[in-house]
Amino acid sequence: MTPPRFLIIADGDFGPMTSKTANSVIRYRPGQVVGVLDRVNAGGTVQAVLGFGGAIPVVATMREGLALGATVVLIGIAPQGGRLPGEWHAWIGEAIDAGCDIWNGLHTFLSDDPDLAARAARRGRKILDLRKPPIDLPVASGLAKDVEAYVCLTVGTDCNVGKMTSQLQLVDGLRARGLRTNFVATGQTGIMIEGWGIAVDAVVADFIAGATERITLQGAKDADIVLVEGQGSINHPGYSGVTLGLLHGACPSGLILCHQASREYIGDYRQAAWLRIPPLSEYVKLYEHIGSAVHPTNVVAICMNTYDLDESAARAACEAAELETGLPCTDPVRFDPAPVIDALAADRARYVARRTERG
Amino acid sequence: MTPPRFLIIADGDFGPMTSKTANSVIRYRPGQVVGVLDRVNAGGTVQAVLGFGGAIPVVATMREGLALGATVVLIGIAPQGGRLPGEWHAWIGEAIDAGCDIWNGLHTFLSDDPDLAARAARRGRKILDLRKPPIDLPVASGLAKDVEAYVCLTVGTDCNVGKMTSQLQLVDGLRARGLRTNFVATGQTGIMIEGWGIAVDAVVADFIAGATERITLQGAKDADIVLVEGQGSINHPGYSGVTLGLLHGACPSGLILCHQASREYIGDYRQAAWLRIPPLSEYVKLYEHIGSAVHPTNVVAICMNTYDLDESAARAACEAAELETGLPCTDPVRFDPAPVIDALAADRARYVARRTERG
Repeated sequence: MTPPRFLIIADGDFGPMTSKTANSVIRYRPGQVVGVLDRVNAGGTVQAVLGFGGAIPVVATMREGLALGATVVLIGIAPQGGRLPGEWHAWIGEAIDAGCDIWNGLHTFLSDDPDLAARAARRGRKILDLRKPPIDLPVASGLAKDVEAYVCLTVGTDCNVGKMTSQLQLVDGLRARGLRTNFVATGQTGIMIEGWGIAVDAVVADFIAGATERITLQGAKDADIVLVEGQGSINHPGYSGVTLGLLHGACPSGLILCHQASREYIGDYRQAAWLRIPPLSEYVKLYEHIGSAVHPTNVVAICMNTYDLDESAARAACEAAELETGLPCTDPVRFDPAPVIDALAADRARYVARRTERG
Repeated sequence: MTPPRFLIIADGDFGPMTSKTANSVIRYRPGQVVGVLDRVNAGGTVQAVLGFGGAIPVVATMREGLALGATVVLIGIAPQGGRLPGEWHAWIGEAIDAGCDIWNGLHTFLSDDPDLAARAARRGRKILDLRKPPIDLPVASGLAKDVEAYVCLTVGTDCNVGKMTSQLQLVDGLRARGLRTNFVATGQTGIMIEGWGIAVDAVVADFIAGATERITLQGAKDADIVLVEGQGSINHPGYSGVTLGLLHGACPSGLILCHQASREYIGDYRQAAWLRIPPLSEYVKLYEHIGSAVHPTNVVAICMNTYDLDESAARAACEAAELETGLPCTDPVRFDPAPVIDALAADRARYVARRTERG
C-alpha cells in the first residue's frame, strides 16, 4: 500500500504553539506531508513557521495544495468556534472532487454532511472521521493480559504533558535494538500519524476498556513491544475515567510516567487553585496500586517535558525526579531517550523471563 | 404534579430473578404501579409471582392494562435478543394513542422510531429513552466538592451486588432522623424509580464525571444527604472507567462499600478463574486512595448482599466483614439498616463540623 501524501489544513492558526495535530504529523511523518494550507503564512516554508519541517511549502489555496500531489487532505486544527467555516467546506469538497480522501479529527463528523458524503460516494473517496468510534465495540474481557508482546502505557500527571510524543520519541531507539515496536494510537493526532487507532475519549463509557483492548491486541501482532498511547490522568477530575479504562483495558506490564516540569496545578483547575499536582512518587504509587488491581504493573521510567525551561533547569528537573522516585528520567524530545529505552528493554526482558518460567 | 401511574411491560420474563428493573420499580414505588403486562402469569397477582407487590394485577393485553388507569407505560425487561418484538411495538403504539407516556430503558431508542415518534407527537405524549444522554453535558470541574449537602456514593466489589438497592433501603431511615435525603439515579432502573437521572454508562467517555457532577448538584439542592448511585467496580476490567468517573465527578465525602457475600470472582470472568475478589479491606484502601486523589473521602460502612444465604450464614458474613474492616456492616434488605444509617449520620455530622470550622 502506498503511504498517503498529506495536505494539511491549518488555516489561520498554524504556529509552534497552536496547531498541535498538524505539527505532530509534520514532526513524525515529514516525508508524507506535501504542504500546509494556511493563508497567513502562505509563500513560506514549514521550517520558517515551526522551526522544523524543512522545505515543505505553505500554500494559500486548495488548488495549489492539490498540485503538490496530495492524496489525503487532513484537518490539522480545530476552526475557531468549532463550526466548519464555509470556505473549509468548499476546500474539502474541491479536494474530494479532485480524488483525495479526507481525514478529519474534529468533533463534527464530515461523513454526516450530505453534500460532502454524496461527492465522496460519487468519486469513490473516503471521509474518515477519526473521532467516530466503531459501532461494534466489546466490553473488555482481559484479553490484553495474555499477549506475548510487552505492553507499555504512558500515564500522566495531567492532560497534555507529552504522553504521545514521549512514546513516539522511543520508537526508533527500540527498533534499533532489534525490538519490533508498534505504537497504538488512542487520540486523533496519533491516529493521523499511524493511520489507525480509536479515539477512546469519544467512545461510550461502557466501552473505554473494550476499545483499548481491541487496539492493543491489534498492535501486539508481530510485535515485541506495544506502546499504547495514554490519555488524561488518574487524578484529573474530568477525564480520570478514560485514564482508568485505558489502564485496565491495555493490561500494561510497564508504565511510563509523563510530567511537565513547570506545571503546578491539574489542567484547567488552576484558577480555583484546586488540585495541586502531588509529588511524582505519589503518582507512581497510585498508578501501580490501581493498575495492579487488574493486572500487575510497574512504573519503569519518567518522561519529563521541559520545553519551557532552559537547559540547566531541564537537567535539574530530570535529576530531581530520578532522586525522588529512584527511576530513570529524561526529556526524550530534548535529550537522549536512551535511559528510558534501557529501562523498557530491561523490564521487557524480565517480562519475557516470567512468561518463559510459567511455560 | 401528579405522580405517574405505571403499567409495566415484562412479557414472558416476569419473575423474582429475571425482571430486575420491573421488580425494583414495584418494590420502591408499589403505590404507583397499576399493573404488569405478562401473558405467562396473566390473571394472577404480582405477589404470587415475586413474593411482594400485593394485589397488583398481571394482565395479558394492553387494553386491560390501560383500563387500570396507567399514565405511563414502562418497559421493565429487555426483550429476548435485544430487538423490540412486533407485538411490543403494537402495544406501545396503542398506549401512546390512548394518551400514555413511554419510559424506555432499552439500548434501542424508541424516540428514533418514526411511527412511534409521529404518534406521540400527534397525541402530545412523551417517549423518554432513559439511556439517551443529554446532548449538552459538561466536562466535570469539581463543583460537587462544594455542595453543602453530605454526598455519599455506593461503591462495589463488582457489578450487580446491590449498590442501588442498598441506598434505597436507607432513604426512609435517614428521613426519619430529620435528614432531607435525595437519591441520585445513575442507571435506568434508578431513573425509573426517581423519575430523573442520567445513565452514566451510556454517555461519551469524556463526560462520565461531568454527567455525574450535574446530577449530584441537582440532587444536593434542599438536601442534607445526597445518595449517589454507584456503578461497576474500581477493579472491574470492563467498567472501572465508569466507576472512577462517578467517584471523581460526585466528590463524595462518604462511601458505602457493597458486596455480595457468596461471590468469589469479578463479574463475567469466572470461567477464566481470573480476578478473584480481593478482601474487603483491600477495596477500602483502593477506593479511599483513588477517591481522595481528587477529594477527601472515606468508607463509612459495608452493605452485604446475602440473598442466597441462610440467616446464620448471612449474620456470619456481616460479622466477618465488621471484624476485617472495623466498619459497621449489615444486609439492609434483610436486616435492620440502622447500623449503616448511624454511621452515615455520624460521618455527616463530622462533615458539617469541618465545613463550619472552615467558615
